[in-house]
Amino acid sequence: MDLKNAQTIFAQEEERFVGDWKTLLRFKSISTDPGHDKDCEKCADWLVEHLKKIGLQSKLLKTPGKPVVYGEWKGKPNTPQVVFYGHYDVQPVDPLDLWGSDPFEPVIKDGRLYARGAQDNKGQLMYVLKAIETLIARKELNCNLKLFIEGEEEHGSDGIDRAMAEWPELKGDVLMVCDFGVVPSGAPTITMGLRGIVALNAKLKGPAYDLHSGVHGGVAANPAIGIAKLVSTLHDSNGRVAVEGFYEGSKEPGAEERRYANAEPWSDEMYEKLTGAKPAGGEKGYTAWERRGFRPTLEINGIHSGYGGPGSKTIIPSLAEAKITCRLVPGQDPKLTVERVAKHLSRHTPPGLTLEIEYGQAVGGALSLSPESELVKRAKAVLDQLGAGSTALWWEGASVPILAKMSQVSGAEPLLIGFGEEGDRIHAPNESFSIEQFRKGFLFSMLYLSGY
Amino acid sequence: MDLKNAQTIFAQEEERFVGDWKTLLRFKSISTDPGHDKDCEKCADWLVEHLKKIGLQSKLLKTPGKPVVYGEWKGKPNTPQVVFYGHYDVQPVDPLDLWGSDPFEPVIKDGRLYARGAQDNKGQLMYVLKAIETLIARKELNCNLKLFIEGEEEHGSDGIDRAMAEWPELKGDVLMVCDFGVVPSGAPTITMGLRGIVALNAKLKGPAYDLHSGVHGGVAANPAIGIAKLVSTLHDSNGRVAVEGFYEGSKEPGAEERRYANAEPWSDEMYEKLTGAKPAGGEKGYTAWERRGFRPTLEINGIHSGYGGPGSKTIIPSLAEAKITCRLVPGQDPKLTVERVAKHLSRHTPPGLTLEIEYGQAVGGALSLSPESELVKRAKAVLDQLGAGSTALWWEGASVPILAKMSQVSGAEPLLIGFGEEGDRIHAPNESFSIEQFRKGFLFSMLYLSGY
Repeated sequence: MDLKNAQTIFAQEEERFVGDWKTLLRFKSISTDPGHDKDCEKCADWLVEHLKKIGLQSKLLKTPGKPVVYGEWKGKPNTPQVVFYGHYDVQPVDPLDLWGSDPFEPVIKDGRLYARGAQDNKGQLMYVLKAIETLIARKELNCNLKLFIEGEEEHGSDGIDRAMAEWPELKGDVLMVCDFGVVPSGAPTITMGLRGIVALNAKLKGPAYDLHSGVHGGVAANPAIGIAKLVSTLHDSNGRVAVEGFYEGSKEPGAEERRYANAEPWSDEMYEKLTGAKPAGGEKGYTAWERRGFRPTLEINGIHSGYGGPGSKTIIPSLAEAKITCRLVPGQDPKLTVERVAKHLSRHTPPGLTLEIEYGQAVGGALSLSPESELVKRAKAVLDQLGAGSTALWWEGASVPILAKMSQVSGAEPLLIGFGEEGDRIHAPNESFSIEQFRKGFLFSMLYLSGY
Repeated sequence: MDLKNAQTIFAQEEERFVGDWKTLLRFKSISTDPGHDKDCEKCADWLVEHLKKIGLQSKLLKTPGKPVVYGEWKGKPNTPQVVFYGHYDVQPVDPLDLWGSDPFEPVIKDGRLYARGAQDNKGQLMYVLKAIETLIARKELNCNLKLFIEGEEEHGSDGIDRAMAEWPELKGDVLMVCDFGVVPSGAPTITMGLRGIVALNAKLKGPAYDLHSGVHGGVAANPAIGIAKLVSTLHDSNGRVAVEGFYEGSKEPGAEERRYANAEPWSDEMYEKLTGAKPAGGEKGYTAWERRGFRPTLEINGIHSGYGGPGSKTIIPSLAEAKITCRLVPGQDPKLTVERVAKHLSRHTPPGLTLEIEYGQAVGGALSLSPESELVKRAKAVLDQLGAGSTALWWEGASVPILAKMSQVSGAEPLLIGFGEEGDRIHAPNESFSIEQFRKGFLFSMLYLSGY
C-alpha cells in the first residue's frame, strides 16, 4: 500500500468513515459517572459487533470494572504481533452551557467534527479501525492484530489494570496506541514519553451545617479559608511542589532529550494566543517544553466550598474539597507519591477542621521511549512520508496510566502515535477533531500496518 | 395588658396565628436571586392586605429595588412614635438536598416549624403583627406605630437604603427591630451591638477554557491554585486579617461591655456540641464572645473553581471565584474597608492570572447601644417579667446593615430584640423556629407595645 493509494481510498470512503465515527460518538460513555454505566455497556456492545463486521474475531473481556472490547486477526503467520490499545470512554461534559451544540450529537462545522470524544479517543480509534477494515478487505494487512479497547481510561483504568495479568491474549511485539497529538507546528509526531498520574481528593469538615457568618464569624474555623490555606502550602514561591520527598527518584532529562524537546518552536505569545493564558505555571529554571515533558506537577483540578450562586450568601460553609492530581516522571513511585501528599495534607490541616482523604482510581507510573529504538525509527519513516521529513519526537505531558503496565505484561514495545491538536479542546466544552487530522491518522495506519 | 392575659390570649389564638405564619412562609421571597422577583412581589402584596386586615393603613413604598411594605396606626396622640423594621425576604435555599422537607411548605415537628424564613425574619415579624392585631382589636395599643417591612435585607438593603431619605413617614422615637436572638442559656436578651458588613467577590481568570491538566500541567498558571494562594494571604498565622489598614479606627470594647459580654456562660465543648465545630476561628487574644461581639472579621462564604462532581476530571480550570464578606465594628469605615480589601487582592494576584472584583450590595456600618439608655432599661423590665429577671445584654456578631442608617434618618433610638436560637439554623438548610420562642416574642410585643 502506498500513500497515493491510501489517499484515493480515503477520498472515496470519507462519507462512510465519518458516518461510523458519528455513530460511535453518540454513545454517552462517561466512565466516571455511574449514571452513564448503561451507555458505556451499549458502546462496548456496538464495538464488538463493529469489529466482527470489519473482519475481526471479537468479544468482551470481563474486568472488575467496565468490559474491554477485544478484537483479533491472525491471518499472517510469521509477521509481528501488534497489540493495539484504545478506549471507548469519554470525559464528563459539564459545564454543559458552554457547549455550542449537544456533546453527543456530532456536527461538522468548518471541517471539524464537534462532540465529546471527537478526538479523545473515539476519533483516533475510528481512523485505525477504518484502516484495518480497508486492509483486511484488500488483503494488505501485513501483521497480526490484537485490539484491546477499554472503557475506563478517563477514570483510572482500574478494571483492565486488575484483569490484564490473567489474559493469555495479551502478548505481542508492538504496543500501538493512537491517543496522542502532534506538535504545535502540526508536523507528524511520535510521543516519546508520558507522565504518570495519581489522584486524591482532600475534604475539610468544619461545622455540622452551614453557619451564619455574622453570628459565627471570628468564632468557628472556616473550611473555605482552611482549604485555601491547605492548598497554598502545596507549592513554594518558585512553583516547586512543597511536599516532602515529592521529587525523590525523579530523573532529569538527558542532553539529547532536551534538544529534541526544545526543537519545537515556542513563544509565550503563541501559547497565550492558543489558550488565552500566559505560560506562568510550573517550576522556575526549566523551559515550558521541559516543564511539560520532563517535570512532575501537582495540580488542583477543582476546589469547592460554600455558596457559588448569584449575589452573596453570608455563611461559614460546613465543608470544603480540593481535587488533586499529580503528574509523575520516570523514577517517581506512584503509591509513595500519594502517601507523601496525604501526609503533607494531614500535617498542614488548619486547627479546628477535620481532614478526610478520598483516594482516586488513577495510579500509574510514567513511560518513556528511546530515540534509538528500531520501532521509533520505522514509525518515523512512515510519518516522514506524510510530513515531508519533518517528523517530531516529543515528550507529552499527559498520562495514559495503564500503558506502562500493559507494555510490561504484554512484553510489547510501546509505539505512541496520534494526530490530535491543541485546538481540539479535549476534556473541555466543544471538543472537536478536524477531518484532515482524521485523514492523516487513517493514512498513517494504512501505511504502518501494511508495511511489515 | 398583663402577662397572664397575654398568655391566655396566645393559648386561644395559637392555631390561627400559626396559620398566618405559614401563609407568609409559602412565598419564595429569595431577594438575591432574580428568578424569584415575582415571588417577592406577591409576598409584599399579601403583607399590605394583611396589615389592612389587622387594622393598619397600609401601602407599598417604592424603592429603586424591591418595594417596602408600609403600615401605620396613629390612634394614640401624645404617645411615643414607634418605628418598626422587619423584612419579608429570605436567604437562598441551596443545597436543597440537605433539607428534610420542602423549604417553602412549612411543617411542624416536635414543637418547631420548619421552613426557609421560619425564624429569619418571617417568624419574628409575624409574632409582632399578631400582637399588634390583638392590641388594636382590644384597644390596648398604647403607642403610635409605623411599620417598614423591606424586601432586600438578605441582599444588602439597597432599595430602602437609597429611598428612605425621601420618606416623610420615617420619623419617630424608637426604632424597634425583632430580628435577633437570645443568648445560649435561653434567657431573654437585648442585642446591644451589630457588626457592619461589606461584600465583594474576587474572580481569577486563567486560560480561555478548561485545559487538559496533563498537557498543560506545569505550563499554564492554575486559577484553582491561584485563588487558594490569594485567599491564604488574607489572614496571618494568628487569625488576624492581613489586609493593610483593616483594623484602623476600630474601637476596642470597654470594661463594662466586656463584663456583660462575658457574663453569658461559655465552654468550647458546648459550642462544639451545638455546631459540630471547635471555636477555632478568629484572632488570638480575645474570648469567643469578644471575637464575635467586638472584633471585625473577613470570611470566605464560598470558593469555587473547576470540577466538583463525582470522581475526578483532569483539568486546569479557566476560572476561580471567592466570595468575601467582612464584618465591621464601630469606627471602621465600610467603603474604605472594601477599597483596602480590593487593593490587597490586586497586590497579591498570582502571576499569569487576571483579577476581577465584583462589588457586593451589602455596605453598612456597625451599631451599638448603651447599657445606660432608658429605652434599654424599659425593655429589660418587660423581658425580666418573661425570664424571671435573667435578661441578658449582649453583642451580636451579625449585621443588619440598614439599621445604623435608619436610626440616623428617623432620629429614633434602636431597640434590638429577638427570640431566635442557634438551633434555628437560619441561612442554612432546615431552618426552623420553635413555637415556644414565637410565643415569647408575642408576649414581649404585647407587653411592650401596651406598656407606654
